[in-house]
Amino acid sequence: MAETNYFSSGSGDASDEQATWIDWQGSTSIEMVPGLQIQALTSANVMVSFVHLEPHTEAAVHWHDEEQISIVIDGELEFEVGGVTRTLRRGDAVLIPSNVPHGARTGSSPCFELDVFNPPRRALLDALGIDVGAGEPADDR
Amino acid sequence: MAETNYFSSGSGDASDEQATWIDWQGSTSIEMVPGLQIQALTSANVMVSFVHLEPHTEAAVHWHDEEQISIVIDGELEFEVGGVTRTLRRGDAVLIPSNVPHGARTGSSPCFELDVFNPPRRALLDALGIDVGAGEPADDR
Repeated sequence: MAETNYFSSGSGDASDEQATWIDWQGSTSIEMVPGLQIQALTSANVMVSFVHLEPHTEAAVHWHDEEQISIVIDGELEFEVGGVTRTLRRGDAVLIPSNVPHGARTGSSPCFELDVFNPPRRALLDALGIDVGAGEPADDR
Repeated sequence: MAETNYFSSGSGDASDEQATWIDWQGSTSIEMVPGLQIQALTSANVMVSFVHLEPHTEAAVHWHDEEQISIVIDGELEFEVGGVTRTLRRGDAVLIPSNVPHGARTGSSPCFELDVFNPPRRALLDALGIDVGAGEPADDR
């Protein structure tokens, strides 16, 4: 019963606000460290970053206020979170609570993974020059 | 300068909370409509759903309170949002504000896409039997 209702009309009023269509692959890319490129899209509450790592590339252990969900799409990535190390591939993900130290590195293969931040990661907004006001889409998306 | 600091130690204290490692690909899958399978992972504030659509499959137009970001990973998907229709492929995404009507359909190819919900989509939590308390990971992830 829940399944048949999942795509039924909403219970409340529909909104006539417009969507924001995004070509993230054509958006500004930043090489955060050699071999690691990041692009991002941002709503008021959530940021999705698209991270491409070349082989033998490392993101050093760090932490931040923003909660993070990392999801491997292609290739594999060795993730260290809170002192625990695992290799993630497509089908794997890790939820990283606020301020838990984490880092990652590729081996001989490249990797494409997504990091979902809540709220949007301030350091990445700054690096990309994105200013997201409440309820307003950023021009730089 | 922003780039070199991106993976440096955080400014505040590190947390010793543990991560949650997730095999989403092995998690409960629901066939919401014939040809459309959904799996999900959920934090307190964000849900990521992993949606596989077979060819010639449709998610009828609907709307919900939760804000949605849809991201195509493999294949292509025709998305209708707020009366505007576009075909999305890898590299494309759409931000759908709260309660804006939207639907999607595949053509002759399958599609794998992610829907990021903020807050977690209640209808999907219910369908998957996930009970997410504040700050507590769900057993069913």
